[in-house]
Amino acid sequence: MFLKRWLVGDPLKSAQAAHQRLSKRLALAVFSSDALSSVAYATEEILLVLIPSSLAFAHFSIPISVMIILLLAILTLSYSQIIFEYPGGGGAYTVSKSNLGEWPGLTAAASLMIDYVLTVAVSVAAGIAAITSAIPALFPYRVVLGVFAILLVLLVNLRGVRESGKVFAVPTYMFIGTMLLMLAVGAFQLLFGQLTPVVSQSVAAQTAVESVSLFLLLRAFSSGCTALTGVEVISNGVPAFRPPEPKNAVITMITMALVLGILFLGISTMAYHLGILPKDDETVVSQVAHAIFGEGVLYYLIQGSTMSILVLAANSAFAGFPRLASLLARDGYMPQQMELMGDRLVFSNGIIILGVFSCLLIVIFGGDTHALIPLYAVGVFLSFTLAQAGMVRRWLGKRGPHWRKKIIINGIGAVATAIATAIIASTKFMHGAWIVIVLIPILIMMFRGIHAHYKAVSDQIALDRRGSRPPMPRRNIVIIPINGVNRAVIRAVDYARSRPGEVRAVLVDVDPEKTARLEMQWAQWGCGVNIVVLPSPYRSVLTSLLDYVEKLLEKEPDTWVTVVIPEILPARWWQNILHNQRALLLKASLLFKDRVILTDVPFHLKR
Amino acid sequence: MFLKRWLVGDPLKSAQAAHQRLSKRLALAVFSSDALSSVAYATEEILLVLIPSSLAFAHFSIPISVMIILLLAILTLSYSQIIFEYPGGGGAYTVSKSNLGEWPGLTAAASLMIDYVLTVAVSVAAGIAAITSAIPALFPYRVVLGVFAILLVLLVNLRGVRESGKVFAVPTYMFIGTMLLMLAVGAFQLLFGQLTPVVSQSVAAQTAVESVSLFLLLRAFSSGCTALTGVEVISNGVPAFRPPEPKNAVITMITMALVLGILFLGISTMAYHLGILPKDDETVVSQVAHAIFGEGVLYYLIQGSTMSILVLAANSAFAGFPRLASLLARDGYMPQQMELMGDRLVFSNGIIILGVFSCLLIVIFGGDTHALIPLYAVGVFLSFTLAQAGMVRRWLGKRGPHWRKKIIINGIGAVATAIATAIIASTKFMHGAWIVIVLIPILIMMFRGIHAHYKAVSDQIALDRRGSRPPMPRRNIVIIPINGVNRAVIRAVDYARSRPGEVRAVLVDVDPEKTARLEMQWAQWGCGVNIVVLPSPYRSVLTSLLDYVEKLLEKEPDTWVTVVIPEILPARWWQNILHNQRALLLKASLLFKDRVILTDVPFHLKR
Repeated sequence: MFLKRWLVGDPLKSAQAAHQRLSKRLALAVFSSDALSSVAYATEEILLVLIPSSLAFAHFSIPISVMIILLLAILTLSYSQIIFEYPGGGGAYTVSKSNLGEWPGLTAAASLMIDYVLTVAVSVAAGIAAITSAIPALFPYRVVLGVFAILLVLLVNLRGVRESGKVFAVPTYMFIGTMLLMLAVGAFQLLFGQLTPVVSQSVAAQTAVESVSLFLLLRAFSSGCTALTGVEVISNGVPAFRPPEPKNAVITMITMALVLGILFLGISTMAYHLGILPKDDETVVSQVAHAIFGEGVLYYLIQGSTMSILVLAANSAFAGFPRLASLLARDGYMPQQMELMGDRLVFSNGIIILGVFSCLLIVIFGGDTHALIPLYAVGVFLSFTLAQAGMVRRWLGKRGPHWRKKIIINGIGAVATAIATAIIASTKFMHGAWIVIVLIPILIMMFRGIHAHYKAVSDQIALDRRGSRPPMPRRNIVIIPINGVNRAVIRAVDYARSRPGEVRAVLVDVDPEKTARLEMQWAQWGCGVNIVVLPSPYRSVLTSLLDYVEKLLEKEPDTWVTVVIPEILPARWWQNILHNQRALLLKASLLFKDRVILTDVPFHLKR
Repeated sequence: MFLKRWLVGDPLKSAQAAHQRLSKRLALAVFSSDALSSVAYATEEILLVLIPSSLAFAHFSIPISVMIILLLAILTLSYSQIIFEYPGGGGAYTVSKSNLGEWPGLTAAASLMIDYVLTVAVSVAAGIAAITSAIPALFPYRVVLGVFAILLVLLVNLRGVRESGKVFAVPTYMFIGTMLLMLAVGAFQLLFGQLTPVVSQSVAAQTAVESVSLFLLLRAFSSGCTALTGVEVISNGVPAFRPPEPKNAVITMITMALVLGILFLGISTMAYHLGILPKDDETVVSQVAHAIFGEGVLYYLIQGSTMSILVLAANSAFAGFPRLASLLARDGYMPQQMELMGDRLVFSNGIIILGVFSCLLIVIFGGDTHALIPLYAVGVFLSFTLAQAGMVRRWLGKRGPHWRKKIIINGIGAVATAIATAIIASTKFMHGAWIVIVLIPILIMMFRGIHAHYKAVSDQIALDRRGSRPPMPRRNIVIIPINGVNRAVIRAVDYARSRPGEVRAVLVDVDPEKTARLEMQWAQWGCGVNIVVLPSPYRSVLTSLLDYVEKLLEKEPDTWVTVVIPEILPARWWQNILHNQRALLLKASLLFKDRVILTDVPFHLKR
């Protein structure tokens, strides 16, 4: 308990939850880390698909990046409509469940849950890669560093990060600023010839004309699509904006999309013009920064702010996952515990589960970003598709002003993301996407199984609508099994006598001499409570007691039987082994008998 | 439960415990397996010490055997006096505790406990060796076979073996009979020259005169002393004999000692004259039997009955260990559970512990008799010494007829066994005896720790001798924490109302809307029970409830607070994860509060 306090902090009052509204500038910092941070790895992932086939294919990275930015524009437009329609926060789960029904809603939920876990794993892996690019000596420790980073974020989140809007601003704007500076300086140097491509002429000479396969291009496109993960985050956070909330949220989202587009296209172009090739131990962004800034302070600033924004992206999943889990718990698709807020106004259980699973991914995939990427985008784009399709269905039912135009916008969004989902699922299937495609239905089955159980429980405990009460026993006989006369037993007897009613001590006759002695002691100490001596042909105290209780239940069909058990609680836990396990056995045997209620009266030992 | 019935059998009535008295012939069979079976390995253990130094030393096995038989005679005489003095059964623990005090008593108890475990392990290992000598194909499986044999004996003992006196007679007399036949036939063949030594002339030619060290002889003597383990068994079982019990017991013991002496000396002599050397995969007894009977039926009969009597010896430890543990538990040196007889009139816990530890020994020592032997005799001889010394002390205090003669007899016994103990401990120390010498004080500390704890408990729960009762609260307020109005809650309310007194439902206000709805429902269903609504500034239901209980305890210093918890019990165990763990947390938090008593009212779900 003390450790928890020290690590997690004192409990917070509910009133403290009323967070201050965010200005657009702060909101951009808080909500864009997930989306913006993906430029740290998206270009590299495109090149990793193209280059191994032929160095000549590197130039395809530019048109592919343009395609992805086109998709970004469609998504941004499409999500603007969701923001205006769901000002209370429109996650893919909410939108698809309310418009398309349970199954699509659960599919979106399953995809999102998987993606939150992957966001943490991929972001942390990429963040660690930014660090190990700058400090190669740390490369062998990347798994440990990754797990450590996740645990740190986990702990910060268990403490709660509500008041921390301003904390986000510094690294986010630092990242945007240094990246833009790098691109500007790079462009200037390229134009004025101060910068020469890193790639040697001999490699450039190799670039004969080879035919590129469509599959390869689609696979490169799939890898690049990871740049778009996190675009939807603002649509979940509309209530955090200053009024008019939807308008401010849309403006922020468009700004974010612009920044994302500029950075992504800029890095792709710069990497191509510098002839940069992916390396095992240095990221593409690090190579670009090296080429432009050399080994100076600015280089380390780039790497540091890249790492920071990636950690913030991981952090954003720690806000999203528990919130989704709590929504699912409220709807009865997840265990009730997920719905509970902890001492610090956060959904602690969800936070811990997310931390555990993302650490597992880091360990299983060796902290390698490239190994995790094929699993990543499938779920994101599936949830995009379901959300847009849900909006189309909504306009069809609701109509309202400009409904045809709105259908077209969300329709284009739905079709574009559906095509992207299909491309990603098929081109990445063998590289890991199959894991996600197998996991989604398993999660949906789990959600539905949990839901069915809660439904069965609520049916069983529901009260009769006509107002008639279920019949219940009216009397209550208290029996106290004893095997000695001591303070623990007298305490139980006194407790039983503290309310009026029938009380009987019950003694099993295992040893006639001892029984006679106890009966005499009872006469002095028993406070007038009747004592029943049970025969024990099998010497089993348990069997005799159970027989007695069963006969009592049979004879008195309208009576509760309360079994008051005097129990000695040792001062130290290991001393429990030295105390008769009879009480435990008795309780286990009586637990499933209807009308039998157990009450322990503990006697606490001091030493 | 069903499995237990099928394996262990139906419970037996206490009345069935009155065992029939044993005739001398049956008693010899029941009590002598431990002692007689040791001839199966004792000669071999002597040779194993002598031969590796020089083949010429083999002839020392004869005088060493004679020395051991002399010790046997002293022990038999000494134990006769114990039998007459302790007709109720005089184990080393009883004799040393009652005459020498607690420490020697516990030392004897610790030695005996270790020895029971070793008796099982050594006997089973030797029994399996008898089998693998006859069927070499089984040699690689000896560990598995040993564990299996122990589990079998364990199971038989959990069923109870009271009525099985006659079952013992067949293998014991078969063993005695076939062994005597073998020795007689062998002696006849040797005398009339039909049998030639197995050992080749070239080996015999090597036998130059070498000097033998005293240490080697003493070590061989130590190994041979394992022949005497089990001699004391009859003195524990005197009440099982027909009257006059002590006289019949002594006659039986003397008979046993004679048979043991003849067999042991016979096998040692025969092995020497046949020039038999110990082998890894065939026992000395098996080699002797092979030499005399060849491959015939009689050979297999010898091996089979050797295995049988060794299993019976292991079985005798399963009677002795739990009985000793129960004696120690009665005196407060072992956990109370050891004192309980199970359904089948046996001390089940002791039997299981013995089985587990002896299996462990078999596994750790690879089922190898020779590796276990150095651990074996130390404890036995230490307990012999303590018992004889106890008798000397007894005669000194009690005097009585012929007390000087009695002192001399037990005194010689005590000195002889003390010397043997010292020899064994020193010569075998490095080979494994150190384990036992380290374990004994650890066990003694454990006994004393347990005793101190029980003493502390009984002091704390003891009632005041002057007859004044400890002061206790007189009133009882029942509170029922609720978070809904349903059948489970109504059941708890009805239970609480089944005895007169103050009952309050307690509701923590986490969500004002829900609270208002519940209060309305309560008006309809609450049976007139007052409802208390608690504020919850920290949203923690638990904290609010604990605060309320604490304030109640403070305000009402003379009152029990009964917390009745409506609990939903799922139909399947894994569904527990889907139910709010709040009840569990609440119970854990309230368990250690004085005057707070918890009562679960379970609502059993059907599906």
